[in-house]
Amino acid sequence: MRRLKSFEKLTPSYLFPEIERRKEQFLKRSPDAEIINLGIGDTVRPLPPPIAEAMERASHNLALEEGYSGYGKTEGLLSLREALSTKIYHGNIAPDEIFISDGAKCDTSRLQILLQRARSVGVQDPSYPIYLDGTILHGIKEIHALSCTPENGFFPTLPKDLDLLYICNPNNPTGTAYTTEQLKRLVDYAHKVGALILYDGAYSSFIQDPDLPKSIYDIEGARHLAIEVNSFSKMVGFTGVRLGWTVIPKELKFECGHSLWSDWKRLISIAFNGASNIAQRGGLAVFEGEEWRENLLYYMENARLLKAAFEELGYDVYGGEHAPFLWIHSPGESSWDLFQYFLERRHIVITPGIGFGAAGEHFIRVSSFAHRDQINAVIHRIEQRDGASLTP
Amino acid sequence: MRRLKSFEKLTPSYLFPEIERRKEQFLKRSPDAEIINLGIGDTVRPLPPPIAEAMERASHNLALEEGYSGYGKTEGLLSLREALSTKIYHGNIAPDEIFISDGAKCDTSRLQILLQRARSVGVQDPSYPIYLDGTILHGIKEIHALSCTPENGFFPTLPKDLDLLYICNPNNPTGTAYTTEQLKRLVDYAHKVGALILYDGAYSSFIQDPDLPKSIYDIEGARHLAIEVNSFSKMVGFTGVRLGWTVIPKELKFECGHSLWSDWKRLISIAFNGASNIAQRGGLAVFEGEEWRENLLYYMENARLLKAAFEELGYDVYGGEHAPFLWIHSPGESSWDLFQYFLERRHIVITPGIGFGAAGEHFIRVSSFAHRDQINAVIHRIEQRDGASLTP
Repeated sequence: MRRLKSFEKLTPSYLFPEIERRKEQFLKRSPDAEIINLGIGDTVRPLPPPIAEAMERASHNLALEEGYSGYGKTEGLLSLREALSTKIYHGNIAPDEIFISDGAKCDTSRLQILLQRARSVGVQDPSYPIYLDGTILHGIKEIHALSCTPENGFFPTLPKDLDLLYICNPNNPTGTAYTTEQLKRLVDYAHKVGALILYDGAYSSFIQDPDLPKSIYDIEGARHLAIEVNSFSKMVGFTGVRLGWTVIPKELKFECGHSLWSDWKRLISIAFNGASNIAQRGGLAVFEGEEWRENLLYYMENARLLKAAFEELGYDVYGGEHAPFLWIHSPGESSWDLFQYFLERRHIVITPGIGFGAAGEHFIRVSSFAHRDQINAVIHRIEQRDGASLTP
Repeated sequence: MRRLKSFEKLTPSYLFPEIERRKEQFLKRSPDAEIINLGIGDTVRPLPPPIAEAMERASHNLALEEGYSGYGKTEGLLSLREALSTKIYHGNIAPDEIFISDGAKCDTSRLQILLQRARSVGVQDPSYPIYLDGTILHGIKEIHALSCTPENGFFPTLPKDLDLLYICNPNNPTGTAYTTEQLKRLVDYAHKVGALILYDGAYSSFIQDPDLPKSIYDIEGARHLAIEVNSFSKMVGFTGVRLGWTVIPKELKFECGHSLWSDWKRLISIAFNGASNIAQRGGLAVFEGEEWRENLLYYMENARLLKAAFEELGYDVYGGEHAPFLWIHSPGESSWDLFQYFLERRHIVITPGIGFGAAGEHFIRVSSFAHRDQINAVIHRIEQRDGASLTP
């Protein structure tokens, strides 16, 4: 059996395992350090009780003659697809254009099978690593790292041609959210060059300003050129429960005129077997109340506190207003040096910006997914003036 | 965006949707027909209460400060990997060689990404459609359909060379289980020609004879040349809950000497994010008791009753002793004609053998996943002598 050649081109270690390794190494030297992790963007707040109760009931029912269910439809519960159609897309997207998944990452990987014949791919730099890794894995050679920096307002210069453009908005890691005008420029660009946009909206529920677009389909014409992947992970704390969705509008066509929607249906019949029925019942319960918004506000208050504290120390802080991430600039330092500084001197794990791409050098990503007492402790620790400071 | 060429080579409709379509069509004409479905191999019996309760607790805990958990390890809970290592593999497989998945089908698809450079692939004919579909999807051209028929005891003639060999044992759809001697012949063959075996053991828990092998790793040398995918779906009725596992022994190497195990770890870091934490708690509970075996015995009693009834009518019936499927031969009839006969005259859905490959023509697959009263009704219906009979 021959090894897939593209594996040689992947970096050997994924960002988060490397962070874990460095943390463990430090803990061997300093076993008493009480480390606070603002590195991995993982939710920490308990689920709203009605959502957990719906999953308890779903579990309980599986032990009853009249409640048991086996395989569901691969594309998910119709009632959940209808709820998403109404509550998230206000009817702009039909239920049968929404495919329930076990998470945005897993479906992105399946989409990368479908879209592997892209001649050229554009990825925001910095960006969540899997867009790039999955593109490399499928042997696509023309990859454009589209630099997103404070200088260009995190809006990239777009190349003359592109088959596929990944856009994560609000952005992981920069925490910035595009305006309607900016998203419109992307849609116009894609229309002009014939590109498909793969839009990751996993953080859209964190948008606070009602004037900012929450979905690519808020932009006219996007149904003809955009796929949206999305997730309950950050929205309601389902990172471990595993539930997401993908939108494939029926207008989407390959160059040959064949429907993406029908190929996607065929692909998931081969590569997927539906999301967990228990998780789907939890997803349905989300839309029966408003409790799920409370955790979002909690994390956004964390972000506000962190942002104020880092700014007080003189850092340039981006993001944190419509996304749970701060993107912090420290021009004099490499981002792994910043990582080591915060780990060793402040016992805080953050994510080095370089892990998200070359344009992330000199940046760190700070996550607001933590308990309030941890946030307060972090603020206390970074404000110490003990001569060990790397603050600007 | 260019369409993936290999889509053109896939049959447009997956077997089970086609069965569903024909059923719906018939129901339009005969809306009062009480159809019994022995077609799709989907579990119907409720979960043993202790397993459902473990998932209820897991769901409940997610609403508690001290019980909440987010992302788990992509490869799954260590305790579950340890339980599988001990209870299923009796220590022959180490916990870190076991990767928890959301099901055998989903992981098979991810394995097909890893193994797409196979020059030649062998698939049992008949077989579960996704081995072939996934192979076609990745553009592999040399595909050997290895005929498994009553004449060769369902053991195929093996080609001179092969890079990858799919083996499903006990077999879906034929319901037959290989002896140790037969599996040994496969392992010897793979060793001789340098093939990798992708072994699907999803039905291994149905094996009744303690002398029959339950895992490919029961055969000496298999660690050097076999991957095993497996599932809680049929074993404990988790078809809707979604939980499975894949075994990648550390000895497995590509031709270049690189470790499959380490590439698999890298691949799942890109393409997967772990199985649902609730489902994994259910999986752990399986091994805390013996209740889960009761449903297996129930289905096997169904199989015994069905087998006796079809044999009584004069059919040649294979399988059904160590697997939940009967593979029934009716030489004079096409398998879609048999499908229509059972649907229209007996109001029973079965699966046409041709849906599993050319060698399935003139066969039907009958599933024992049903309630006992349905099995009794099926037996009553097929025993009717009303002149409409297709029985031999």
